[in-house]
Amino acid sequence: MSDSSAPLDSIRELLAMAPPPSHEAESAARRRQASLTKPPGSLGRLEDVAAFVAAWRGTEAPTLERPLVAVFAGNHGVAARGVSAYPAEVTRQMLRNFSAGGAAVNQICASVGAALKVFELALDVPTKDICAGPAMSEAETAATFAYGMEAIADGVDLLCVGEMGIGNTTVAAAIYHALYGGTASDWTGPGAGVEGEALARKIEAVETAVALHRPFLDDPLQVMVRLGGREIAAMAGAIVAARSQNIPVVLDGYVACAAAAILQAAEPRALDHCLAGHLSAEPAHAEVLRRLGKAPLLDLGLRLGEGSGAALAVALIKAALACHSGMATFEAAGVANRS
Amino acid sequence: MSDSSAPLDSIRELLAMAPPPSHEAESAARRRQASLTKPPGSLGRLEDVAAFVAAWRGTEAPTLERPLVAVFAGNHGVAARGVSAYPAEVTRQMLRNFSAGGAAVNQICASVGAALKVFELALDVPTKDICAGPAMSEAETAATFAYGMEAIADGVDLLCVGEMGIGNTTVAAAIYHALYGGTASDWTGPGAGVEGEALARKIEAVETAVALHRPFLDDPLQVMVRLGGREIAAMAGAIVAARSQNIPVVLDGYVACAAAAILQAAEPRALDHCLAGHLSAEPAHAEVLRRLGKAPLLDLGLRLGEGSGAALAVALIKAALACHSGMATFEAAGVANRS
Repeated sequence: MSDSSAPLDSIRELLAMAPPPSHEAESAARRRQASLTKPPGSLGRLEDVAAFVAAWRGTEAPTLERPLVAVFAGNHGVAARGVSAYPAEVTRQMLRNFSAGGAAVNQICASVGAALKVFELALDVPTKDICAGPAMSEAETAATFAYGMEAIADGVDLLCVGEMGIGNTTVAAAIYHALYGGTASDWTGPGAGVEGEALARKIEAVETAVALHRPFLDDPLQVMVRLGGREIAAMAGAIVAARSQNIPVVLDGYVACAAAAILQAAEPRALDHCLAGHLSAEPAHAEVLRRLGKAPLLDLGLRLGEGSGAALAVALIKAALACHSGMATFEAAGVANRS
Repeated sequence: MSDSSAPLDSIRELLAMAPPPSHEAESAARRRQASLTKPPGSLGRLEDVAAFVAAWRGTEAPTLERPLVAVFAGNHGVAARGVSAYPAEVTRQMLRNFSAGGAAVNQICASVGAALKVFELALDVPTKDICAGPAMSEAETAATFAYGMEAIADGVDLLCVGEMGIGNTTVAAAIYHALYGGTASDWTGPGAGVEGEALARKIEAVETAVALHRPFLDDPLQVMVRLGGREIAAMAGAIVAARSQNIPVVLDGYVACAAAAILQAAEPRALDHCLAGHLSAEPAHAEVLRRLGKAPLLDLGLRLGEGSGAALAVALIKAALACHSGMATFEAAGVANRS
């Protein structure tokens, strides 16, 4: 193996090591659910979510003490092509807004009781224009992936993965086009609000970038190197790091799922610990989720990014675990079971 | 007008007086949303929910301080026909479980930060079997409706309406069949889990009851008298009381919507202040919501009742208002708006 591919090898090794869930804990959780004062299955997906968290945390009745929303922010050379509804400086301005507590995700995190951490990824040095060359070097991709793994460093029991970055729906569309085929326009939508000529430029950029890098794109990790933004690589690192610690992950919307899609293409089991927080209004997201095999917990027409949809889903997961762990059994409550 | 219809007249008067929302407050809320640091409309239904609450509370930036989940519990003569998966004594046993904090709705209320009140409706005296005669007298219906109006007595700024009552999906199915036509089986599903012969008995009971009372069912309030359970009448009262105080309502699932459906049939504007908390797994609920003109906030396969789906939706409404009232404006945050 050549030196130049070495930086990606550590990622491949981590993907290959992905640990499985605890089937014992999941079975115990399902038995517990059958004893609780409700008709079997009547809490629907709340029961599935609780069993899922039990399986990944390896315990029959898990609690949620430290949910974290990790938002990764990057800038993109392709933004200079006029593919976005907002100027590129908005990425940094929004980071200040996150710090000051003024963004949507700040309010949602406070409302649902989740911590928020924002990871800034060399905003002054945008990735290279994907229409002209690789976004990053392999070494930079691996380093950014490793930085993303830090998301869980302070102790986390549920990780929501989100992003901010003017131009990054263009990058995500290119990733989907590379991984899933079709045409550039199949995967390219309004993002933060482009239409008309700007949308046409966006579609053209996606098409040009994928055509340029095509010879390398059979390797999903090369998709990340060549088409990815830094927040894509960092989110991929965060998802993989969570897996290594059996921490369940909630994916946010269209851009966050691009990081997930790369991982799944590289290793089919890579997303077994992930839930889809919501269905975005970005038109291609429904097809993305279908390919990821994930049914979204929410469908509220959000298209903001920032981890907002994943953060909102934390409220449902908390309620699911509250029911699972806090409800009385038929026996303890003196309630007659099915006649 | 005869004496015998007098008890229902007060309900008709309340329905006719239903106050409108504040269009000024709604417009102010929409202007506020346009100034917040996010692409226009990117919070999807969260923005609609915030504007809706603003309109009904009559203020540009409403808060949610006292959300209440009101659960009304009744017993049903028709349960003696073997239409339910659980014995009738479970209604009272579940009330004790609510009091002890052991039911699902207790955990969900604690998780989302809503108060819970349970209203017991003469459980020792079930309503009469709707297959043999009217469930209640008009006077009893009106008194139960008035009792339901007490739900908002202690100060509430958002009311979730839910129920408990063995046999009450049979009652709800009869109400829908009476109001919406079709066949009894169109509206009758498994409820808490009946199948096979018990489900056939349930469908037969719905058919028999509606055929028996048919001459009276053109009047939606007679549907409530003749086919309703007490929790149906009480929920209807709670919904109307909330309207009189401009308090938005979150409807729970299949049974709670039967109370709403009666009100809408009697007065088309009666549900303008109501949101649908969720789509139940009870098969006919989707068609019910379509007829009510309400898109559910959640679709998680719940079919428990107890107000559980409405309570869960409180988390979304809280997050919607947190964003609406707490986010920074473009100007205050120094974020560039659309290029």
